Amino acid sequence: PLSSDFTPPTNKEIGATAHAEPGNPSVYLCGNSLGLLSKRSDQLIREELDAWRTRAVVGHFDHPKQRPWVKFTDEVHPLMAEISEAEVACMGTLTNNLHLMMDSFYKPTAERYKILCEAKAFPSDQYAFASQAKAHNLNPADAIIEDILSVLEREGSSIALVIFSGVQYYTGQWFPMESITKKGKEKGCIVGWDLAHAFANVPIQLHAWDVDFAVWCTYKYGNSGPGGIAGLFVHEKWHEVELPKYAGWWGHTLTTRFKMPPTFSPISGAQGFQQSNPCILALASVLGSLQSFTAVGMDKVRQRSLSLTAALDEKLRSSKYFVPPAEAAKGLNGNAKPAFTIITPEDPQARGAQLSLLFLPVGTGVMQKVFAYLMERGVVGDEREPDVIRLAPAPLYNTLLDVNAAVKYLEEAFGSLA
Amino acid sequence: PLSSDFTPPTNKEIGATAHAEPGNPSVYLCGNSLGLLSKRSDQLIREELDAWRTRAVVGHFDHPKQRPWVKFTDEVHPLMAEISEAEVACMGTLTNNLHLMMDSFYKPTAERYKILCEAKAFPSDQYAFASQAKAHNLNPADAIIEDILSVLEREGSSIALVIFSGVQYYTGQWFPMESITKKGKEKGCIVGWDLAHAFANVPIQLHAWDVDFAVWCTYKYGNSGPGGIAGLFVHEKWHEVELPKYAGWWGHTLTTRFKMPPTFSPISGAQGFQQSNPCILALASVLGSLQSFTAVGMDKVRQRSLSLTAALDEKLRSSKYFVPPAEAAKGLNGNAKPAFTIITPEDPQARGAQLSLLFLPVGTGVMQKVFAYLMERGVVGDEREPDVIRLAPAPLYNTLLDVNAAVKYLEEAFGSLA
Ligand SMILES: Cc1ncc(COP(=O)(O)O)c(C=O)c1O
Ligand SMILES: Cc1ncc(COP(=O)(O)O)c(C=O)c1O
Repeated sequence: PLSSDFTPPTNKEIGATAHAEPGNPSVYLCGNSLGLLSKRSDQLIREELDAWRTRAVVGHFDHPKQRPWVKFTDEVHPLMAEISEAEVACMGTLTNNLHLMMDSFYKPTAERYKILCEAKAFPSDQYAFASQAKAHNLNPADAIIEDILSVLEREGSSIALVIFSGVQYYTGQWFPMESITKKGKEKGCIVGWDLAHAFANVPIQLHAWDVDFAVWCTYKYGNSGPGGIAGLFVHEKWHEVELPKYAGWWGHTLTTRFKMPPTFSPISGAQGFQQSNPCILALASVLGSLQSFTAVGMDKVRQRSLSLTAALDEKLRSSKYFVPPAEAAKGLNGNAKPAFTIITPEDPQARGAQLSLLFLPVGTGVMQKVFAYLMERGVVGDEREPDVIRLAPAPLYNTLLDVNAAVKYLEEAFGSLA
Repeated sequence: PLSSDFTPPTNKEIGATAHAEPGNPSVYLCGNSLGLLSKRSDQLIREELDAWRTRAVVGHFDHPKQRPWVKFTDEVHPLMAEISEAEVACMGTLTNNLHLMMDSFYKPTAERYKILCEAKAFPSDQYAFASQAKAHNLNPADAIIEDILSVLEREGSSIALVIFSGVQYYTGQWFPMESITKKGKEKGCIVGWDLAHAFANVPIQLHAWDVDFAVWCTYKYGNSGPGGIAGLFVHEKWHEVELPKYAGWWGHTLTTRFKMPPTFSPISGAQGFQQSNPCILALASVLGSLQSFTAVGMDKVRQRSLSLTAALDEKLRSSKYFVPPAEAAKGLNGNAKPAFTIITPEDPQARGAQLSLLFLPVGTGVMQKVFAYLMERGVVGDEREPDVIRLAPAPLYNTLLDVNAAVKYLEEAFGSLA
């Protein structure tokens, strides 16, 4: 693997009861849902437990490993930042940060009040958008449009906010972030991004693309663990204009934060949006994983990702159970035998690590049977009812062997259905 | 100590260079700022690291210790709840939860728009109140009143929200929560509480007192570690009325959450306000400590707290360096020799664990010298510039020996100033 910091669970650990080698590592292709624990994260977390036990409150300012808690995020931000550290903050959770950003950047007027998002956005985002619309006394059915660039062209002047996911959680499509942002800006909209599936997966240039704001979680490709601490980006051009709307002391300038003056004086940029002192165990966890990325280098990570996903794609497409998407769409497979297609774009520039497999005939339980077969053999993907399995080789820890094994067991699974 | 789950740092670990016994436990009287790591928390966190390493994504539903992550909070809520579990949620951070609650419960009108808080509220709260007022196009200078019951009597009809801290962070005063709440409700106000210093410190009956909402952090007396996960209370009577304003998928009913329907259908009660999947390491940490409280029993904890703080109070008041508050207020000590008074109420029903010592003459650096002397001897308190040291015996892990040692070194410190 590209990094030796990760050890996948064994077949036995993961509950793969039908594998001949229970002690062998499982084929973990689920980093798009929850990344693995890295040795670095594990160690950093244990170090923080030690720091807490041995220093207690003193650790805020005087830390055994020189990571005083009051500025622990200083360790994380440079590794998260693309260009300017002042543009990112490691804080909170994705949905929470999304609301914070919409509180500031979604300012509907009588003429321009709509939210444009992708079709079938992740439900938490849908709930967030609808509740924000309602909070402005708007009817979500009118205020929220799910569609793409054509709508932007047609209805741009009524759209206040364009907010898409960078990589779509279900299809695995990497949206053309740069051109969507450009088109949105041309039409006078604010453009924000949900990077849940894009962070630490595909190369993004939020600053250069003139993105207004973005939010992400870090527990998928970022390997920060269940419910890990999230991130937020606010473009530099907003730093003097759009001050944090809902203030907290952790957004207050560090030099005077503990003097506790009565008036809020925010840190310039994204970090001014921090409200509370952040969870140190969560920060240690994400820091460890980000160090693994830095050690390898993001360019290499993407190269590796491209080659692993291309290999998986190629092998899947040459399977005798594969049906090309166009054929599947035509319903040719309507009453036919079990098969699958791929709903993720074939163009490597239009996807990240993940491939989403749609099982056919839809609604007949093929997916569930295949998924169970794979799990029993230690191939961990992510099932999306009713018919999709998502497989994502994570560039840091997956290998070609994983790709081969996944396809082998997938074909076996189909064989077993006969 | 009342619980054997906690081991204070040693003198050496804490940097107490002038103590003759570097290996002895320090006198940690700073649980009001950051509680100690318990053995249970430490173990639960390590178990979650193991679960993450060995199960990865499978841990969400199938957990080696039967704490599947999707419902990990089910372990925590009963231990946090006072009566009805549906009234509490373990989530987010204090300031963030405060904003969430104010977003829902602070609804200023032309006549009734003011926020009444205690004088000198914790700055994060002040920033939060001011920013909320501004978000409603109100002038904080007009909209925020810092005062107590008399104002409520006089200006009640203009007050939308009464929000105090249960125990004041600076003075250690435990406000008469029941009567403030009652008076606020009589005047038609919403009444909320910041329980940062009250949670796991003094007995509170939010439901019975008819409190509308409350928020708290858990890293002080709650021992959840730096930046630990916080809590929130919403009174049952609001459950059908005041639905979450800013929705996220984690507030969606569990039975359909992962079916991901497009429309938000909140869990009834406080837990409907959850936005994101919570940090498991943080939950494990607070769970461990809450188990220690449960093992001992909250009544015993308060009894022990009363006796430890009474002992500290008595010893301090019989010190020759003590000046009664009334005298200190009269400025008798203006140009006199170093001394201290206690600004925390003497009535045990008007305080929790903490005593706040004001050092005299004010502004002359007595506090700083005493604080340094104490730290060097392993007595850890909390300094508040310019003149206050807060000392808080934590009932679970502090003992009478700690109280005695603290007073002994305090007197030595004064002796050394001569
Ligand atoms: C009374 C009070 N309110 C609010 C806070 C802010 O806490 P957080 O950073 O967890 O939001 C604190 C922190 O010490 C506090 O003591
Ligand atoms: C695209 C997308 N948005 C939002 C979320 C919600 O995340 P959180 O629970 O961290 O707020 C997820 C979680 O998987 C996601 O995939």
